[in-house]
Amino acid sequence: MAHDEFSLIRQWTSRSNGQEGDGLTVGIGDDAAVFSPTPETEVVACCDAMVETVHFLRETMKPADIGYKAVISNISDIAAMGGIARYALVSIAVSPSYTDEEYSQLYDGIYEACEQYGVRVIGGDTVSSPKSLHLAVTVLGEVEKGRAICRSQALPGQLVFVTGHVGSSAAGLHLLLAKKEPEEKWLPLAEAHQRPSAQIQAGRLLQASGACGALNDVSDGLASELWEIAEASDVTIHIDAECIPIREEVLAYARIASKEPLDWALYGGEDYQLVGTVSRDGLAALSQQFAELSIPFTVIGCVEGIGKSVLITRDGQQMTLNKAGFNHFVHVEEKKG
Amino acid sequence: MAHDEFSLIRQWTSRSNGQEGDGLTVGIGDDAAVFSPTPETEVVACCDAMVETVHFLRETMKPADIGYKAVISNISDIAAMGGIARYALVSIAVSPSYTDEEYSQLYDGIYEACEQYGVRVIGGDTVSSPKSLHLAVTVLGEVEKGRAICRSQALPGQLVFVTGHVGSSAAGLHLLLAKKEPEEKWLPLAEAHQRPSAQIQAGRLLQASGACGALNDVSDGLASELWEIAEASDVTIHIDAECIPIREEVLAYARIASKEPLDWALYGGEDYQLVGTVSRDGLAALSQQFAELSIPFTVIGCVEGIGKSVLITRDGQQMTLNKAGFNHFVHVEEKKG
Repeated sequence: MAHDEFSLIRQWTSRSNGQEGDGLTVGIGDDAAVFSPTPETEVVACCDAMVETVHFLRETMKPADIGYKAVISNISDIAAMGGIARYALVSIAVSPSYTDEEYSQLYDGIYEACEQYGVRVIGGDTVSSPKSLHLAVTVLGEVEKGRAICRSQALPGQLVFVTGHVGSSAAGLHLLLAKKEPEEKWLPLAEAHQRPSAQIQAGRLLQASGACGALNDVSDGLASELWEIAEASDVTIHIDAECIPIREEVLAYARIASKEPLDWALYGGEDYQLVGTVSRDGLAALSQQFAELSIPFTVIGCVEGIGKSVLITRDGQQMTLNKAGFNHFVHVEEKKG
Repeated sequence: MAHDEFSLIRQWTSRSNGQEGDGLTVGIGDDAAVFSPTPETEVVACCDAMVETVHFLRETMKPADIGYKAVISNISDIAAMGGIARYALVSIAVSPSYTDEEYSQLYDGIYEACEQYGVRVIGGDTVSSPKSLHLAVTVLGEVEKGRAICRSQALPGQLVFVTGHVGSSAAGLHLLLAKKEPEEKWLPLAEAHQRPSAQIQAGRLLQASGACGALNDVSDGLASELWEIAEASDVTIHIDAECIPIREEVLAYARIASKEPLDWALYGGEDYQLVGTVSRDGLAALSQQFAELSIPFTVIGCVEGIGKSVLITRDGQQMTLNKAGFNHFVHVEEKKG
């Protein structure tokens, strides 16, 4: 860091984003921010951290991607409650291994994600880190009073769905670790890893439908998320491997890389799609609404009964789905092999 | 970290603290927490990070102290807005250099601080860190609508005050770095550094009085906080060095250590007292209220006019107060010399 570090940090963090009249009374620059949600709403709050070499590598994520993804992973948690993301507090521990220019780009990524989702940065802390870059982002959102969708509300008889496609981010990570300059046809996989989307619109549809039971975002892989729902709701979930939506490019790249695409879908994580349960009565209307918005909405199984378990049928065989998801405690480097 | 790390983390973070009926709809354990402030209040949000070797050293802070202080520094920011702290989100990046037992103690410190101030832990993230321990805590609080005290509201003619004493934390740090086993008479200094208090009660008095102009908490040293107020309010602040409240023990220890206690008060930081401005009309009533609560309340100067400047009179000489506060980018080790 240069000696004029405080003015630099101020430069990085002094941008004013967001709209007037969004409920913010005191923004960035005081001891704390003050805002006023409407009386009809509840505040939704979440916090996700990202650490260099644990959650990302310099080789696979540009500084702007790191900032962007740190925000998206939090907005995705708000989406998984059926809420709207509104405010962000960003804590960054900067290490000497990045340049000032790279930190400026990292903040570009943070603000780009915030702008895209209507989120205003209202506070945070910028400190130094002796070695690795750390980001901890808190996002606050709103949801209609009493209408947040929890992971504990799955009911026997409901269907299990997932939005979009899964496994793309893990395929992208494999690609980025294997090839410095990926061919153009695989770039959508790299983008799925570096610039994921949060499913706020899908979450709002599900929340408004009143037909959604439980909901999670796919941050740690489909298997881990389904187990969380099964355990929190005390239900047995049964999914069909053949129904899991995987992009054509992922299937094609998996063949070339001699990898099992289903493993990426089940254990890869960071797809930030929504997985949950929906009543059979509500399915037709929801499917149509998702189709109108061109958001894939795929039924992959059902809730069979009580029991805190997840089963999968694969190649005609039914088995208990292995719980282990993407393990943030295993270094990504170790995953190369 | 042991292999059963997830169950350990769950054990550390699964405590339920706080009261029923405090507005929390969905607590820890889902994608996000949901809470409902009353319609008459605004939400106050802040975020502070602490990094090993930058903000604390293992030699001077026990794991429980680290957790405790990370929470207090945030509650102090809520106090400096005149609010009440309500909820916390805790993000921890754990490094292999601490044992599971030490992490358990760190969480003990977090929950101890939260219990003392009526704060409920509603979320967070526990990840690994390749080298140093990182904590980022977000605290959410409430303040009566339109009544948050900002640092930009100082007015010419107002008096400048500080609560409690300043310089104690810096004296404590000096002591802890100098002596492995401090004599008993200096232990209050060590405690000031390791277990500071947040001035929520003082902040509430000041907020209720309607007489308080600007307010900051002393996290980075009195000089830095006064400059922040002067710049945000566009005023010239003039303080008298002789009025700055410094504890007897600090003065005595400074003599032994051949240090200047005023430097600790002005540039030491982490005292978490409140410094601000108050109208002359409001002074008498406020002084009495503080006296009744046995909280020292000391006038140290006045707001002289406009101008974004801070002057100090010291030994009969008037000069511009050096702005530099405690610099978190300078390693504490380097400060030993």
